[in-house]
Amino acid sequence: MTILISEVGPRDGLQSIDRIMPLEAKKAWIAAEAAAGVREIEVGSFVPASLLPQMGDTAELVAYANTIPGLAVAVLVPNLKGAERALAAGAGKLSIPLSASETHSLKNVRRSHDQMIDEIRAIAALVAGAPADRPVHFEVGLSTAFGCTIEGAVPEDKVVELAGRAIEAGAVEVCLSDTTGYADPAQVRRLVRRVKAAVGDERLNSLHLHNTRGLGLANALAGLDEGITTLDASLGGLGGCPFAPGASGNIVTEDLAFMLHAMGYDTGIDLDALMKVREIVAVALPGEPLYGFTPDAGLPLDLDRRAA
Amino acid sequence: MTILISEVGPRDGLQSIDRIMPLEAKKAWIAAEAAAGVREIEVGSFVPASLLPQMGDTAELVAYANTIPGLAVAVLVPNLKGAERALAAGAGKLSIPLSASETHSLKNVRRSHDQMIDEIRAIAALVAGAPADRPVHFEVGLSTAFGCTIEGAVPEDKVVELAGRAIEAGAVEVCLSDTTGYADPAQVRRLVRRVKAAVGDERLNSLHLHNTRGLGLANALAGLDEGITTLDASLGGLGGCPFAPGASGNIVTEDLAFMLHAMGYDTGIDLDALMKVREIVAVALPGEPLYGFTPDAGLPLDLDRRAA
Repeated sequence: MTILISEVGPRDGLQSIDRIMPLEAKKAWIAAEAAAGVREIEVGSFVPASLLPQMGDTAELVAYANTIPGLAVAVLVPNLKGAERALAAGAGKLSIPLSASETHSLKNVRRSHDQMIDEIRAIAALVAGAPADRPVHFEVGLSTAFGCTIEGAVPEDKVVELAGRAIEAGAVEVCLSDTTGYADPAQVRRLVRRVKAAVGDERLNSLHLHNTRGLGLANALAGLDEGITTLDASLGGLGGCPFAPGASGNIVTEDLAFMLHAMGYDTGIDLDALMKVREIVAVALPGEPLYGFTPDAGLPLDLDRRAA
Repeated sequence: MTILISEVGPRDGLQSIDRIMPLEAKKAWIAAEAAAGVREIEVGSFVPASLLPQMGDTAELVAYANTIPGLAVAVLVPNLKGAERALAAGAGKLSIPLSASETHSLKNVRRSHDQMIDEIRAIAALVAGAPADRPVHFEVGLSTAFGCTIEGAVPEDKVVELAGRAIEAGAVEVCLSDTTGYADPAQVRRLVRRVKAAVGDERLNSLHLHNTRGLGLANALAGLDEGITTLDASLGGLGGCPFAPGASGNIVTEDLAFMLHAMGYDTGIDLDALMKVREIVAVALPGEPLYGFTPDAGLPLDLDRRAA
């Protein structure tokens, strides 16, 4: 069975790092990861460059990534304006965050749930007008779906309701995002099951998990058990959480790829080549903490047997 | 549902650290963890002190831990002689490693499989003679059950066979140990199922997992799914692997306790109190790397809801 690892390091990883990674280093990272077999990369975010200078080169990265054969090029957009820029740049996949916690939504994108649903509807109309030979995939990421650092518990009913509203407004898919690293495996199973039941099995395929409390891969396993087929991850768990020193960011691409490989899933990724991509990031961001255990421990001796 | 976390830090954690932790610090650690609600602690190992000076005070630790009400006091024994010392010291639970990889067994305890089975039979007879008012629980830990750093792949048939022979020789229970951090969740499910089927459901209740490649909690989840009710863990993931710098050792007690709590399992552990125990270890072993994400990230705001 095939599982898609969607690399989000160049977006979610870098977004919380102040130092700007040079454009050429970002390109080298994307190229090396694609060469290692990663099939989808979120290369950046179309937010105003004044707010996030790190994302100021997203249009150039989209153009560059589009030259790599077979790579799905994804971006994050916070609103319709960002979506227009994304389409103009040629992005193949747009994702917009709809925070289940309305307090978080107001802080993050300064919009209420109703306003975000309007935005989603407008983007869906925009995307529907894309040329037939260059279709654009439009997804809504339900952030803080597993809990919020401001509101605390987020009712599952609210997540299910918003998933339904997002699909109704024209999103092709929703993704459940553990923005805060609050998720536990029982909750992942419960919520994936509930959202799939509400919006249709084919409308929820992906999870965006963080490893804030070390549960990231256990949560990924819980998702796989419920039919999830796409997992976001960040090389070296890059990004961390600025509010929790020592707490890593997204689940680590290297460890996730090893786990999936060992379990017999097909990710298309060459693990040895993937491990070497770390060097590019380490050189471009000296001193930046990189997470992940498999790169230090090395691959097990019986790896080939596991792949069988 | 109740899950037992068996703290193995004072044994498996310390065993790979050269610096000797003072007896008083070990006692303070054991006392604080028991006070935080941990119900079983492996306090040491009855190996010759000349081989492992760190374990030289195990008899004193057993005597001390026995004064703590409600605490199960476990020790590791490499052979019959160790078991005699353990019983004389008053240990309530003995565990002997039977390595599924015979090469590893010969290196680790200088005994073949046949010799180890003889040893197990002799210890079972010894344990059977324990006074009725102080019964001793005797378990065999099937080490390298998921793969070996020397032999590579370990055939599952071999693990199943050795589990059967260990029970036949008189062990009350077997435990599957991922000594090398090779396990993946699919393999954990498969092997737990096979061993339970072979020796009886009630004869395999525990897993000893390492977090060498970051899959520790995912493997724990896989075990829970198959009816595992006891999980070994080490405070701060103490110990690491001397052959893999940066690779952590046992799964981290703090992260495991948080995961189980969040999932609604009863561990009897007070998470806040558990986090504070780290300080004792950090002070006693300054500079020693401590692993775990939950202590850095903190407990989530909605923890109480999760406990419900």
